[in-house]
Parts: sequence; C-alpha cells; structure tokens
Amino acid sequence: MANSFESFKAGMDSREERRTLLQRDGKPFFVLISQQFMRADIESLCDTATAIRRLDRHVEGRDFLRSMLRGHRIMNLFAQPSTRTAESFIAAADKLGASTRQVSDLRTSSFAKGESVEDAVRTLSSFFDAIVTRHQDDDFAARAAWALSRSGRPIPVISAGSGKSQHVSQSLLDIYTLRYSFAERGGVDGKDVVIIGDVARNRAARSLAYLLARFERPRIHFVSPDAFAPDDALLRYLDRHEVRTTINSSLATLLKDQGGGIDAIYVTRLQQEWDRGNNGIPDATDRGSADEFVLKPEYRSLLRPDCLLMHPLPRVNELPEEWEDHPGFMVWRQVRNGMWIRAALFAAVFGCDGEIRNRAARLRLL
Amino acid sequence: MANSFESFKAGMDSREERRTLLQRDGKPFFVLISQQFMRADIESLCDTATAIRRLDRHVEGRDFLRSMLRGHRIMNLFAQPSTRTAESFIAAADKLGASTRQVSDLRTSSFAKGESVEDAVRTLSSFFDAIVTRHQDDDFAARAAWALSRSGRPIPVISAGSGKSQHVSQSLLDIYTLRYSFAERGGVDGKDVVIIGDVARNRAARSLAYLLARFERPRIHFVSPDAFAPDDALLRYLDRHEVRTTINSSLATLLKDQGGGIDAIYVTRLQQEWDRGNNGIPDATDRGSADEFVLKPEYRSLLRPDCLLMHPLPRVNELPEEWEDHPGFMVWRQVRNGMWIRAALFAAVFGCDGEIRNRAARLRLL
Amino acid sequence: MANSFESFKAGMDSREERRTLLQRDGKPFFVLISQQFMRADIESLCDTATAIRRLDRHVEGRDFLRSMLRGHRIMNLFAQPSTRTAESFIAAADKLGASTRQVSDLRTSSFAKGESVEDAVRTLSSFFDAIVTRHQDDDFAARAAWALSRSGRPIPVISAGSGKSQHVSQSLLDIYTLRYSFAERGGVDGKDVVIIGDVARNRAARSLAYLLARFERPRIHFVSPDAFAPDDALLRYLDRHEVRTTINSSLATLLKDQGGGIDAIYVTRLQQEWDRGNNGIPDATDRGSADEFVLKPEYRSLLRPDCLLMHPLPRVNELPEEWEDHPGFMVWRQVRNGMWIRAALFAAVFGCDGEIRNRAARLRLL
Repeated sequence: MANSFESFKAGMDSREERRTLLQRDGKPFFVLISQQFMRADIESLCDTATAIRRLDRHVEGRDFLRSMLRGHRIMNLFAQPSTRTAESFIAAADKLGASTRQVSDLRTSSFAKGESVEDAVRTLSSFFDAIVTRHQDDDFAARAAWALSRSGRPIPVISAGSGKSQHVSQSLLDIYTLRYSFAERGGVDGKDVVIIGDVARNRAARSLAYLLARFERPRIHFVSPDAFAPDDALLRYLDRHEVRTTINSSLATLLKDQGGGIDAIYVTRLQQEWDRGNNGIPDATDRGSADEFVLKPEYRSLLRPDCLLMHPLPRVNELPEEWEDHPGFMVWRQVRNGMWIRAALFAAVFGCDGEIRNRAARLRLL
Repeated sequence: MANSFESFKAGMDSREERRTLLQRDGKPFFVLISQQFMRADIESLCDTATAIRRLDRHVEGRDFLRSMLRGHRIMNLFAQPSTRTAESFIAAADKLGASTRQVSDLRTSSFAKGESVEDAVRTLSSFFDAIVTRHQDDDFAARAAWALSRSGRPIPVISAGSGKSQHVSQSLLDIYTLRYSFAERGGVDGKDVVIIGDVARNRAARSLAYLLARFERPRIHFVSPDAFAPDDALLRYLDRHEVRTTINSSLATLLKDQGGGIDAIYVTRLQQEWDRGNNGIPDATDRGSADEFVLKPEYRSLLRPDCLLMHPLPRVNELPEEWEDHPGFMVWRQVRNGMWIRAALFAAVFGCDGEIRNRAARLRLL
Repeated sequence: MANSFESFKAGMDSREERRTLLQRDGKPFFVLISQQFMRADIESLCDTATAIRRLDRHVEGRDFLRSMLRGHRIMNLFAQPSTRTAESFIAAADKLGASTRQVSDLRTSSFAKGESVEDAVRTLSSFFDAIVTRHQDDDFAARAAWALSRSGRPIPVISAGSGKSQHVSQSLLDIYTLRYSFAERGGVDGKDVVIIGDVARNRAARSLAYLLARFERPRIHFVSPDAFAPDDALLRYLDRHEVRTTINSSLATLLKDQGGGIDAIYVTRLQQEWDRGNNGIPDATDRGSADEFVLKPEYRSLLRPDCLLMHPLPRVNELPEEWEDHPGFMVWRQVRNGMWIRAALFAAVFGCDGEIRNRAARLRLL
C-alpha cells in the first residue's frame, strides 16, 4: 500500500513492486498497463477468452457463464466518450452475468460540487464490485486505483484507455487475435509486425508494442510521422526485451523492400483530436491520414495472402474498404475478440477463470 | 442479398422480393415497414402479445417469459430522442429476459471520428443480437439492415421510427388495440376509422393506414391540413388494397355528417418540429393544433359511446383531458399495448413466439 | 383519493389522512416525507436493511435476495443530476433483482413536446412497477404520486430528493447509521446531535431532524448561518414532538461549551448552488463553507472518541480529511448504508420485507 500517489506510480515502473501493487492473491486487481502481464498471464487470458467464446455458443454454456458473476456489479466510469469500448466492456460483463452501469458525464456527478476526485471515486465505488475507467488524463485510472487501495473497501480498477499512454484491454484483444490467427504458424514468437500511425500518442499502438515484448524475438516495424515516432521510453523497453525494431517514414518503401516478410500490419487512425487541444475528444473535423500512412489497395501484391490486416477502429481513410475481402482482414474479428478478452479479464480479476477453462476443457472446447 | 443499397431499397417495394430481403427462415429479420406484415403475421403477433400480457400476471408466467431471451442482448440505437418509445422497447425486451442497452447520443460514438455509418453500426452490432433503431433519416434503419445483411454476422434490425415515413411498431400496437377492442364486434374488418393530423409527415398515422389495408374493406377518413394531406403513394396503395378513403378538411363537418358511423378516431399531434428544420426533434415551442384538428369535448354527442378514441402520444391540445372518462378512451391501453406488442415482435424475430402462445394456450390464457 | 393536487398536499400535512394517502395494505406506497414514518416503521426498515446487508455476504443469500423483485421494473426519473443517489437506488434495486432504468434528461422525453407532466409521468409509468424521482421542484414527487393515484394503474413513487424540502431516503440512511452505531449505547433515544449547515434549504438536514423526532427526547444543536437557520415549521414540529433544540451561530463556542456531551455531529455542505438561481444544480464555483461552519481538526480534543462524525456528501472543505482516522468517522459507512436502506425501502414497498427478515433470522443473521 503506497502512501503517496507518487510512490504508487513509481512502484508501477518496477517489475518487483508492480506485482505487489497491482495483484491480490495471485490475481490481477488493478489492470493499468500492458507491462504488468507476463507471458503466462497472457496465455491464460487468451485461453479463457476462447473458452468463453465457445461456451457462449450453446444455451447451457451461456447459462453457466452467466452464473459466474451473478450478483456482481461493475461500473464503467468513462470521462472520455467512447461508445464502442464502453459497450464492449458492458457486453463482456453481461456475458458473465454481472450487472453494469455506465457513468459517462462526470459533470452530473459530484465532481462538479467542489468534491475531490478521491471522494467521488470512493463514493461511487461503494455501490460496485469493480470499476472500468477511461479518462483523458494519463494518470486517472492509476489515481483511482491508489485512492481505493487506501480505502476500507478496495475494489478492482480496470483501465479502458488512459490519455495518450496506454489502452491495455485493446492490446490484449490484439494479441489474442494475433495468437489465434498464428496458431498454425508457430504463434506470435518471431513474427514481423508493422505498426502504422502516430505511435507516440496512440495508446492502442503503444500498448500492443509493450505486449509484443512478452514474446520471443518479434520484430516491429514502426511507420509514423516524424513528430510522432515512438518515444524513447518505449524503444528502450523494447530493446531491453530483445524486440527488434525499425523506424520508417514511408509505408510504400517498407512494403516494397520487405512486404513478403511481414506477418501482420496494424493500421491506426492519426490521433488528430489531440492537435486541437480538446482533451482527446474526437470530432468530425478529422481529415484522415496523409498518403504515406494509408494502406493503399495497390500494395496488395506486395503482401503475402496470409498477412494479417488489423485496425483498432474507428478508421477514416487509412485502411480502405477494398481490403475487406483480403483473407487476412481481421478487423471485425478484433471487435468480437474485444468482448471475449474483456470477459476473460473480468473472469481473471474475480478469480473464476480457472473454473471457466476447466468447464470448457471438460466439454472438449479447449 | 442486395449488392447496393439502392437495389435493397427497391426490393422492399416489391411484394415478392420484400419477403426474401426482410425474412429469414419464415421469421421477420428486418422490421422496417408496415407493408411487410401480411394479415396472418398481424394475427399471430396480436395473439403472442395477448399471451405475453396474460402470462406476465403471475410469477410462474413471468419467470417463463424471462427465460425466453435470456442471454440475448438488444441495442436501442436512437439518434432521435424519444424516451417513451425507447423505454417501451426496453421494457418489452426485459419482459423476455433480454439484456438491453440504450445508445442515444451518436456524437459520443465513433460517428464523430470520421467513420462511416456502416462501420459504426457494424462495430456496435458486434456486441448485440439485435438492433432497434430510431433516426430522423427515413432510410437509416434500412441502410443499417442492408449493411448488416452484407456482413459476416448479420443481426435483426427493428425500426422504432424512421424520419417522416414509418413507425411500424406504433402501427402494430394501434392495430392490436383496435383488434382487441373490436373482438366482440367482428374485428377490424369493415370498420370506419378517422385519422386526424398532418398525415403526410406523421409516421404513426401513415403506418397505421398501411396496416389497415391488410383487413377487409375498412374505410379511412383522413382529416388534415391541406398542405399535409396523405401523399399519393399512400392513397394509391390504399386504393389498390380496396380501402375506401375520404379526405376531409374539417373534423366538425365530418362528425356532424357521419359521426354515428365512426368506429374509431385516431387523433395525432401536429408535427410542427419539422417546420423548424431541426431534424424532427420537438421542442417546447409547439403551439398545438388549430381548432379544425382538435377533438372538442362538445363533439361527444355526435359519437357513439363505443367509438374508440386513440392517440399515439404525446398530445398537446388535440385530445383534451375531458375525454378521459369516455368509455372508448383507449390512450393509456395503447401505451401498455405498445410494450406487449414489442415483446411479441422480439419473440417473433427470435422464433420463440410459438412456444409462448402454446404455453398460454395450455394454461387456457388464449 | 384526492380530487385536486391541493387537497392531496393538504392531506399529507394531517397525521390521519397521510396514512390513507401514502399507504396501501399497511405498506408504504408513496414515500415522500420523513414524517410519514412512525417509530415502528423506522425500526422495521433498519432491521430489513441489516438483514439484506448480511444476506448479501454469501452467494446463497445473494441469490435469495435477487429473487425477491425479479421481474419488477423500477425507473429512476431524475430531473436533477445526481449520480451518487441515482446509483445508490439502482444498486439497491439490483440487489433485490429488479430491473432498473435511469431517465435523466427530461428534455429528451416528451416533456419537450408541449405535453403535461401528468401525461408524461403516466406514460413512462406504464412500463414500470415503481418510480424513484428527484426534482428541483419541492412538489414534483408529490404531484407524480397524486397523478398516478388517480390513474387506472397507480404504482409506488419514492422521492429521492425534492427541491429544498426533503430527502427522505437520505434521512433514513442517517438514522440507520446512528441506530446501528448507538446499538450498544441505548440507541438513538436521548442522544445529543449537532447539525451543521444551512438547514433552511438543506433537505438532508431537514429530513434527518424530522426523523429524530420519532425518538425519545433527543436534543438537536443546529449550527447555521443566520439567513439559513431552521424554518419555523420545522422548529414547531420538533417542539411538538418534544425534541429539545438549540440554535447556534458558532460551532467553536458550542463545542467548547458542550463538546463532551455531543454524541454525533452531522456536517453538511453549504448549498450555494441555490444562491445562483440555477435550480439547485451545483457547479464548480462552490467556495465551500466559511470558518464558523467547518469542523476543524483542532476541535478533536473537544470531542469524545465515540462521538460520531457524519456527512451526507459531497463535501468541500467542511469536514477535512484529517478526521478520517477518528474512530467515530462514519461517512463511508453512510454511503454503503444508503444502498442497504434503499433496498429495505423497496422491500417494504413491494411487501417482501417480512420474508427477508425471517430468512435472516432463521440463519441467525438478525
């Protein structure tokens, strides 16, 4: 239990302290950053997600799943508007039978009455068994976790996107999609992944890179505007974990040179809303990506047919509709996988993941 | 499966193609227009609604109903604000045990990020088993249906009000109310129905007229401002289906001449919000109806005591409170019936309507 | 059944008529004012709350509780923003298995279409089995109750805060917290309670004072700005019920003189939002309380260690964080108790409170 938020935050940077701060009884309690997941954690989450996905296909499996978190209450505390991520978490909780509530407009909550964030979070948390939170402030989720860890009734906090820094549940679904798709090809180890976008402020891209570091010698090819290249902290982390990286400013050149060796391309939208200084809330003035960061249909012949094409959505112009019939087009699977991996995350947090995997194994679904 | 939205829409105008486009396995899959329901469909929906209404009265029946759609997830995607219709659909889904979510503010969804409507609907649909949608655009629901019909995971789409054109679930509840009330009087066939309001842009009134055409030789007396008289397409359709119609500009004259022959009066609010060009969103500036379109208390002696008085609500001044003690005042029953008929619609879409009617019949409730 | 709202309201002031108007079959039906609860009602509600709280600790108890209101639908109709109270009621309903819906923005409902409040409430009520309502208008909840009592399908109405006048569920949770904490000290009878704040317009403080009058000879020390001292109606009521009161303008003086005799201090936030004439909606311009109404850390030595410290939240500066480690600091328990007492209130309204207390007694939890 950290006495100041600063020491809590510093602890999160240390591999040893991190486990103490973020886990309880060997289970994730606060889910804040991709780095907190070890390789075994990731494998286990992915197996749980597959178990849930397959159990959900039949009425008995659905009833079993819905008994897992019956009577548990989960709050989505979303300061930053995001219908899709919010609904994904709510669907995930619902699949396991938990009750959910969305609290979106913090202006209507007590924050407006001169109350401290700590008081507000603690008050709302009194009615729930876990909080999922999204906020434009990089530190909000961590601060909520810290405040609750010092209270008489701490409950789990799961980040659903923290400012520009991390989007841990998105990266888990992306890894799940990669792992599943590469199942017949030796898994994620040693794969070549292209990440396109303004990585410095795209939390989905950054979180994915952190998670890839848990696998054996992957290679990441970043393609980003110079001003938004991967930050040094990320690059040092990848280097320390033996991830080979290249930094590229032209997608066309990269694909012409090495297209046949690429196993997956992760395309992201340019995060232009941050340029407008409006707290990360997108609006309709997005112009989309410049030519160099668009995966053009004419690159098709440069790629292998089994190359995966992924995007965290929403997309503007950077992954044109023409790609939808490519055999590696995974975008709609990613969306569904988001629901399954988030359900797996709830199962892990509440400690019913083992029971779910066992049930699926007994029914030969795993 | 239509390749372009235009061919999908054209198909909806053809009686033959319509069934292929809007049904799956003999069940309604996309519920978009009143014309898609045949007489037998309507009778069956009404019986299901009655079965649900009666089963809901006792705890065993309620538990049975709540098991019907347990584990199913339904989204209300409402671009146009409407608490009452939204809550009616949600209550209906809840009665059958489905989980529901309301997505009202499309600005907080990905639409704002430069994303296509098709992408947004498809993404959100990934977390659900059916979509109920309301939109100021006449074509939104049909476009969503078309986009999903081309996707790898199509789910049912039910329109809860499309622009000025149709309000199919409202017309089903109105027909249910008429059929139920006329049960001892030979049913809806051959009845004289007055429809008051600006029919040209009142989707509830238009949808009701389309449904009445499924019955034997009814007569419809329209009373509307000249500028908003029934449109030619509607009148041609009614004529083709042997519905006798009269067009009237004065309610007083109509009732003085033929009041004793009228079986039901359907009063509607003038849709003045469309005059203000604000996308069909009403506000507090409504002045209510002009004298000619108000059902004045002094007309009471011109009507039979068994004449039904109906209104889709909300009302301003056009159906004064003095009518509430008239034996034919059906307005509050319409509201409850809306919940029952929408539950019947969900049951039909998900194919559990037969089981519900059988259960009710076995318990002698039908 | 009152014919006019005025006679309904007048009846609420009369001890005899009140029961007829607000109860059905010996159960509370409309929950509007603290005065409607007799001593026995309060004891029974508190016992039910304790039973629910203890049953909720184990999975069998939780499942039993969730079967109590399964299939019942409860609407939170909140015109005044309040996430915490809304979520507390929703959590309470959820604990008993009821379905809940939040309707917050009355602008998106039919109110905007020129419709009467009576029509709107009656329409929405058609989809529900009870309404919980909060409104800046002192009379809204009572008016909704009156309108429904005259309808063909009346349902219970529970006020969740009415303008400046009453906040009955808050006072029930406060009394529950007092009663529970004083269990080993002879209960609430004869206790000395300090109430700090602008009592004249603080509905929580006023409702608590009304409830304290149900106990034997308590003493209330009010500390408030001159302009917002307790109103005459409240003081006369307390006098008639043999509650001894003192009016104080300085907390420091009161505590120096009589601190050792104080059993509980109820601190409230100054309700500055009413000064700005914006319908009781707080905003971020709150400056907090002036020095005389702050419970300063240096008063600690003036109080007994078993003196209770309470606050309805949100707080600004009037109950500083330094008090959190005081043994009598009850604020976070109040928040949880709010959920339990509201569940008890639903149980009483729907008549399943006896069954809940019996179950708990059989399991030796009461």
